[in-house]
Amino acid sequence: MPASPTEADFAAWMGSIQTRVEGALARSLPGPQHAPARLHQAMRYAALEGGKRVRPLLTFAAGELVGADPARLDIAACAVEMIHAYSLVHDDLPCMDDDVLRRGKPTVHVEYDEATALLVGDALQALAFQLLAENTLADTAVIQLEMLRTLAIASGSRGMAGGQAIDLEATGKTFSQPELEFMHVRKTGALISAAVKLGALCAGPCPAALEQYGRRVGLAFQIVDDVLDMEASTATLGKTAGKDSKQGKPTYVSAMGVARARQIAEELRRDAHAALDTLDTFDKLGQRTQRLRQLADFIVLRRF
Amino acid sequence: MPASPTEADFAAWMGSIQTRVEGALARSLPGPQHAPARLHQAMRYAALEGGKRVRPLLTFAAGELVGADPARLDIAACAVEMIHAYSLVHDDLPCMDDDVLRRGKPTVHVEYDEATALLVGDALQALAFQLLAENTLADTAVIQLEMLRTLAIASGSRGMAGGQAIDLEATGKTFSQPELEFMHVRKTGALISAAVKLGALCAGPCPAALEQYGRRVGLAFQIVDDVLDMEASTATLGKTAGKDSKQGKPTYVSAMGVARARQIAEELRRDAHAALDTLDTFDKLGQRTQRLRQLADFIVLRRF
Repeated sequence: MPASPTEADFAAWMGSIQTRVEGALARSLPGPQHAPARLHQAMRYAALEGGKRVRPLLTFAAGELVGADPARLDIAACAVEMIHAYSLVHDDLPCMDDDVLRRGKPTVHVEYDEATALLVGDALQALAFQLLAENTLADTAVIQLEMLRTLAIASGSRGMAGGQAIDLEATGKTFSQPELEFMHVRKTGALISAAVKLGALCAGPCPAALEQYGRRVGLAFQIVDDVLDMEASTATLGKTAGKDSKQGKPTYVSAMGVARARQIAEELRRDAHAALDTLDTFDKLGQRTQRLRQLADFIVLRRF
Repeated sequence: MPASPTEADFAAWMGSIQTRVEGALARSLPGPQHAPARLHQAMRYAALEGGKRVRPLLTFAAGELVGADPARLDIAACAVEMIHAYSLVHDDLPCMDDDVLRRGKPTVHVEYDEATALLVGDALQALAFQLLAENTLADTAVIQLEMLRTLAIASGSRGMAGGQAIDLEATGKTFSQPELEFMHVRKTGALISAAVKLGALCAGPCPAALEQYGRRVGLAFQIVDDVLDMEASTATLGKTAGKDSKQGKPTYVSAMGVARARQIAEELRRDAHAALDTLDTFDKLGQRTQRLRQLADFIVLRRF
C-alpha cells in the first residue's frame, strides 16, 4: 500500500530528525581516539546507530511546537537518548536481563566485557547531565536547572531505575492494573515524559497539556512493548522476543490479554491527542501539534 | 600520646561535620518505606553510616573558608558523597573488583543482590544531580549550573568512570609515573577536586588556588591509598587489603616502592599547603585556611 502524502511527510520528518540526532550524538560523545579509548569506543558503540530514537523525536516534536531553537533541541535530545542508551546497556547485563542481542547487534558486555559495559552506562549517565549543564539550552539558567531536575528525577529511583527495581521483584507475581501502571509509568513512562518536557523547556515553561501528553504516550509505549514482546519475532524486534512471559513477568498482556492491552493503549493514544486539543485553540487545523499526534499514533500503532 | 589542643579541635570539627552530613544524607535519600522500598533501603545501606566522609569534609572546609551557607554545603556534600557511594557499589560488583567487604559490612550485592546493587549505583548517581538541580545552592543559577557541570565531568568518562576504565586495563601492565598520575587523577582525584570546588561555589566563583589545592590533595589521596593497600591489614582498612598487588595492578608502590610513593605524597601535601598561602595574604595566622591544611595533613598522614 503506498503511503499517503501525510505519511510520507511524517516519514521524511522522522528520517531527518534521526539523521540529525545521530550527528549530534556523534559530536557529543568523546572521540574514540581520546583516552580512555576503549571506554569511549564502547560508549559510542552503545549510543550510535541505534533504535528508532523515539525519545529524541518527541523532544523535537515538542520543541518545534513551541518554537524552540533546533540547536538546543539537539543537545536536549542527546541527553535523553544517552540516559536511554545507558539503561539498555545496564539492563542487558547478565545480572539483569542477561541479553546478548540489542538493536540487532551484540550487547555491549558481549562485544566488550561486563566491567566495561558497567562503566559505559555510568559514564553515559554522567555525560547526559554534563550536556544539560554546560550548554545554553533555555532562556534562563533557572529553566535550565529545571531541565536537569526533570531528567534526574525521570532517571532515578522514583523514575526509570525505580521502575527497573519493581520489574526485578515482579517475576512470578500477578500485578493488578494499578500496580502494572505504577511500574510502567516509572520504567518507561518517566523518561518518555521527560523527553517531551525537555523539548518544551528549550523555549520556555512547559505547558501542562504537554506534560499530560507525555504521561499518556509514555504509558502507552510500554503497554505496546508488552504486546509486541508477546507477538513479534526476535528478528523483527532486533532484541530477544517473548522474554517477559518466559521469565514470568507480569505485563498488561499476562494480566488482561492482548486485546484488552491494545484497547488500553488505544485509549491512551486518544487521550494523548485530547491533551493536545487545548494547544490547537488558535489553530483549528491542528498543524502545530501535528508531529506530536503523529508520534502518538506511531508509538501505539507500530509493529516493531 | 594525648592529642594537642589543635588536634583535638580538628577531631571535634571532623566529628561535627560527619554527624551533620550523616543527617543530611538520611534526609536526602528517599525514605525506606517509599516504593520501591527494597531499592530505597539498599540505597540507604550503601550511603549511610559509611567511611570517613573525606569528600564532604573537604566541601565544608572549602565552603567555610569562603563563608558559604552551611545549609547549601549540606546538599553539595551529599551530592558528592552519593557519587562516591555509587562508585563503591559498582566497583565492588563481581564483574569489577568482586569484593564482599566494604566499610566493615557486606557489600551491597552480597547483602542484597547484584541487580539491586547495579540499580542502587545508577539511582544514587541520578539523585546526586537531582539534589544539585532542585535546591538553591549558589548565588546565581549560572553558578549552580557550573556546580552541576563540575560534578558531571568529575564523574564521567574523563573523570572517575574513565579512571576506573584505565584501572581495568592496567592489570599486569607497568605504568610510568605520568601514566599512573593520569589514572589516579581521574579515578580519585577528579571527585576530590570537585568536592573542594563545589564547597567554594556555594559562596561564589571558585578561587584558582582552591582548584590547585584540590588537584594536589586528590592525587595525594590515591597515592596514600596505594601505600595503605600494601601496608595495612584488612581489619584496619575495613575493606580487603593488598588487592591491587595481588591483581597485578600498577600502583605508585609497585612502580617506585613505598618510600618514594610516600615522598611524592608528602610533596603534594606541601604543595597543597602552598596553594593556600595566597588565600592567607590578609590573614597571616592562616586561620581561614586552617581546616583545609589540616585535611591535607589528615589525608596524607592517615593510617587507614
